[in-house]
Amino acid sequence: MNRSNLGKGLPEQAAKPLFQTLAVVGVGLIGGSLARAARERGLVSRIIGIGRGRENLRRALDLGVIDVMETDWDRGIRDADMIVLATPVHGIVHLLPKIASLCGREALVTDVGSVKGSIVREAERTLPNPGRFVGGHPIAGTEHSGVEASFASLFADRKTILTPTERTDPEALETIRKLWEAVGSTVVLMDTERHDRVMGFVSHLPHIVAYALVHTVYSADQREGNLARFSAGGFLDFTRIASSHPEMWRDICLMNREALLEAVESFAHSLDKFKEMISRGDGPGLEDHFTQCRRTRADLLKTAR
Amino acid sequence: MNRSNLGKGLPEQAAKPLFQTLAVVGVGLIGGSLARAARERGLVSRIIGIGRGRENLRRALDLGVIDVMETDWDRGIRDADMIVLATPVHGIVHLLPKIASLCGREALVTDVGSVKGSIVREAERTLPNPGRFVGGHPIAGTEHSGVEASFASLFADRKTILTPTERTDPEALETIRKLWEAVGSTVVLMDTERHDRVMGFVSHLPHIVAYALVHTVYSADQREGNLARFSAGGFLDFTRIASSHPEMWRDICLMNREALLEAVESFAHSLDKFKEMISRGDGPGLEDHFTQCRRTRADLLKTAR
Repeated sequence: MNRSNLGKGLPEQAAKPLFQTLAVVGVGLIGGSLARAARERGLVSRIIGIGRGRENLRRALDLGVIDVMETDWDRGIRDADMIVLATPVHGIVHLLPKIASLCGREALVTDVGSVKGSIVREAERTLPNPGRFVGGHPIAGTEHSGVEASFASLFADRKTILTPTERTDPEALETIRKLWEAVGSTVVLMDTERHDRVMGFVSHLPHIVAYALVHTVYSADQREGNLARFSAGGFLDFTRIASSHPEMWRDICLMNREALLEAVESFAHSLDKFKEMISRGDGPGLEDHFTQCRRTRADLLKTAR
Repeated sequence: MNRSNLGKGLPEQAAKPLFQTLAVVGVGLIGGSLARAARERGLVSRIIGIGRGRENLRRALDLGVIDVMETDWDRGIRDADMIVLATPVHGIVHLLPKIASLCGREALVTDVGSVKGSIVREAERTLPNPGRFVGGHPIAGTEHSGVEASFASLFADRKTILTPTERTDPEALETIRKLWEAVGSTVVLMDTERHDRVMGFVSHLPHIVAYALVHTVYSADQREGNLARFSAGGFLDFTRIASSHPEMWRDICLMNREALLEAVESFAHSLDKFKEMISRGDGPGLEDHFTQCRRTRADLLKTAR
């Protein structure tokens, strides 16, 4: 089962492994892709996949994403010098006390959750050596989930946000930064509060808006019948993100409540502006606003990647 | 310049031409595609392109989309037995009195505007023979515009809505229906009010929501700096439609004001529901709503095309 030498001969790899044993808790799209990339870059000698689902771990093993599968957490966590928590966000908070009771004092711990405040607080509250924890969030993903969808270049040319605190050990931060840079990411540092505000606006808000839009069309369709079938490409593209995992978005909403509510308020205010302009037939105002939005989006396309 | 025989030898074409001379007013993506499709299907002997822009008409001629270009409206309109108004919506209302003063009494007139109430009212008010007018709206389009982007199969497997009134001549309706069916559309009949309500929900509302979302992120970015650059794929896909033409959307907002305001109200109500659930930390409620939205969108994907 040990595939530790698989990555060695590949060109353009990092010279030295960063870790001996990497434990990935939750081997799905993100965890699996990080394992693949770390192996391909020669960053690690051995990868242990840990999780509740034996079947999923078996697939990860068959795909060569991990070297060893462990449903025995005790053994899996104890041996690792680097632990990546890659379950859905709620799971990360839930697992931290367990990880804390099992991990070595010098083990590095990081996560990939899209909410940072509550995770980092829980990590620093529970871990025996909080300085060895660095919160992380790679801004990468696809519509698909699961280890089958994972691929080594998922993080190439993407941003990864790290959220160290005043308690974070600078050397731990440096090592985690090297990990993400080695797999192709540009690393950006932020405090947790700022991270959650930013994501509240650019990621969590759009999801809530897409859900609300689908809900609106659904309700109108129920009331008036046969309305939704006239939806064209725009609507369907627009609402693609409303097909995301319900449990995941429930947890993000609960865990980033304050920042998300603020973003929703701000959006409702923008919507009201448009509504007022439509209501009073303000053609020039609408055209100005639309033109500005078009320009903003064009700028975003240039800078977002 | 006469290319009237170009379409004849093609396979699987309609046996008989429906029209002698088709005048397309506004030879852009929609008008150009309809011209191409009508020619390919052998539905017409001669296509006159009419418009303000000499350069655009020249390109349409060079591309073989039209046989003749006319900036002299008088001559262009007088000769046609079928006139398609394919300018932006506001232009259609504006042009109708002019068309009315030039067209033959037996000429069929139709349009492709995405708002129907105000256009059909103006057509029936101004045209010498209102029974020969049938409002139309092909639910088709791409991100691109202009005659260069036009192609004959744009309407294949798409729905086209026709909005006859009690004044519409049944034979006129039948001919226009044949035209759209011959180019691959499924024709659906609706009254203008219903059309404008449906489009208010499934098309115009999503655009306003996308604009408001871009505006929100823009405003937050202006306030807090460097926030928008963390936008990921979801946000960018989501807001693609906020790159549409500002003038076009200004006019749609003004021309479909009532139905759009109702849709915006309804959306604001849905958004409030989500906001309340987030605010009171209602996990099960959020999960139920998200699950229902996901199911709704999956159903839409099946029925929308």
